[in-house]
Amino acid sequence: MIDARYQAFDAVVQTRSFEAAARRLNLTQSAVSQRIKLLEAELGQVLLVRSKPVQPTPAGRRLLPYVAQLRLIEAEAARALAGDGAHAPVRLSVGVNADTLATWFLPAVRQVVKEEAVVLDCVVDDQDHTHALLAGGDVLGCVSTRPDAMRGCAVRPLGVMRYLCVASPDFCARHFPRGLTRQALARAPGIVFGRHDDMHDLFLRQHFGLDAGQYPQHVVPSSEGFWAMAAAGLGYGFVPAIQIAAQLSDGTLVDAAPGHAEDIALYWHHWQVQSPLMAKLSDAVADGARAVLAAA
Amino acid sequence: MIDARYQAFDAVVQTRSFEAAARRLNLTQSAVSQRIKLLEAELGQVLLVRSKPVQPTPAGRRLLPYVAQLRLIEAEAARALAGDGAHAPVRLSVGVNADTLATWFLPAVRQVVKEEAVVLDCVVDDQDHTHALLAGGDVLGCVSTRPDAMRGCAVRPLGVMRYLCVASPDFCARHFPRGLTRQALARAPGIVFGRHDDMHDLFLRQHFGLDAGQYPQHVVPSSEGFWAMAAAGLGYGFVPAIQIAAQLSDGTLVDAAPGHAEDIALYWHHWQVQSPLMAKLSDAVADGARAVLAAA
Repeated sequence: MIDARYQAFDAVVQTRSFEAAARRLNLTQSAVSQRIKLLEAELGQVLLVRSKPVQPTPAGRRLLPYVAQLRLIEAEAARALAGDGAHAPVRLSVGVNADTLATWFLPAVRQVVKEEAVVLDCVVDDQDHTHALLAGGDVLGCVSTRPDAMRGCAVRPLGVMRYLCVASPDFCARHFPRGLTRQALARAPGIVFGRHDDMHDLFLRQHFGLDAGQYPQHVVPSSEGFWAMAAAGLGYGFVPAIQIAAQLSDGTLVDAAPGHAEDIALYWHHWQVQSPLMAKLSDAVADGARAVLAAA
Repeated sequence: MIDARYQAFDAVVQTRSFEAAARRLNLTQSAVSQRIKLLEAELGQVLLVRSKPVQPTPAGRRLLPYVAQLRLIEAEAARALAGDGAHAPVRLSVGVNADTLATWFLPAVRQVVKEEAVVLDCVVDDQDHTHALLAGGDVLGCVSTRPDAMRGCAVRPLGVMRYLCVASPDFCARHFPRGLTRQALARAPGIVFGRHDDMHDLFLRQHFGLDAGQYPQHVVPSSEGFWAMAAAGLGYGFVPAIQIAAQLSDGTLVDAAPGHAEDIALYWHHWQVQSPLMAKLSDAVADGARAVLAAA
């Protein structure tokens, strides 16, 4: 259904090698190479940098969203034609921030994934950067903080993800006996997911005038790691409120900064022209978010 | 304690900007720039690429492990001189694979971190790549699959991390009614953490002759995501045995491939010359691993 030259281009981009693409397509390597040369000649643009691993050129990258759409439509058509159960699963790629993937996203899409025999390809990035994945054709939809639709895309508000600043009760007693003060925060270790945690840094700068480097931080890029550190009383940090209901109610963790919740508004972006399956996934994302996130 | 020119170089590399480095050091931007030019003139090598963000050149990168060591020694000396409690926490950076960070690593080092007022900077990478972080000066120690010591470094065996292939009982009944067969695996969705999951791919190639692209996979780079998918019966996948003892015993998940456990031997690498604090951390890592991982 997809032109053989585009298929070859797609396979090389996916596998990042001519050799692996040839294996996947059951072709010789020179046949793959020949098809791509033909495509480049027709378009008058070089599409691939022949490095290891092979990379798309800027022109190749501009082509990717369209190839991704073609692939999806082809897979769905095959599904529609084949009898039930006989088709290969359709792959839907989505860009999500880590906290979304760790909390409400999979429960939201679970039913669609199961009923429609979809395989999900989740790409994790910062919620301020996921829209670049959509623009680059890496994903078919994304959860982002960007409120406006991109060219050729549509956007739906999902609601607000609330973050609380939490710690164990003994950590609070030891480090914040007089509550959160500039002096206490300059010495109390925070726990952050990555070296550049905007929320943590902004909180300390805006409310306490502390710049990065003026306070200690554990950097622990792992949810389990965060819980292990916080529960052991080694630090405080921001986590989604929906992720810690149990810990707050059993007293393992407490709100260390009452009145300082941070709210992040999230949006679902997708291509305006959606395949039927992708439209179902988009609906499930919007419905699932509405059930869990606060209204913006 | 550290030469002002090296301090300027270090601050620019850390903050990736001359402006932020100047703020951190309480200097003007031109003073920072001047110091780095002096250092470059003395060494006869350009150390920084003046891009946005600023990046070290290959020569700058070769210098980084030594600057990291200097910084650690300075911090520990300040600690030794200051009275107890008056010093800023010492930052120890370590390279770990995600499964290690999610399981035994933080319990192993928890006591040292608490008693010594250390802040941990964990950098997560594939267990086959963490040693490059050590060589590049990004970290002071790392958990790696590499068994031999690198130049200037020492290595200690940690034991074996065992992975089991698990799924929910209903997933097994639906997809593997006759056990794991090539035909069943070509259709049953796996769950992997990243697009290039060596263990999953190798398992299917070695035992069932299936190449990448010949079987469906959910890509879910999130532990919580993995559990949500597996528990909902949407896929099967490999997880560390020490992470799923509870799920195996309460029957939420079962071993889908008995006799097919995969064992990964892990090693702790660190610089031969260790600061006293880093030596304590290394001992805690080795002891903690011995208590949890199987002997190699």
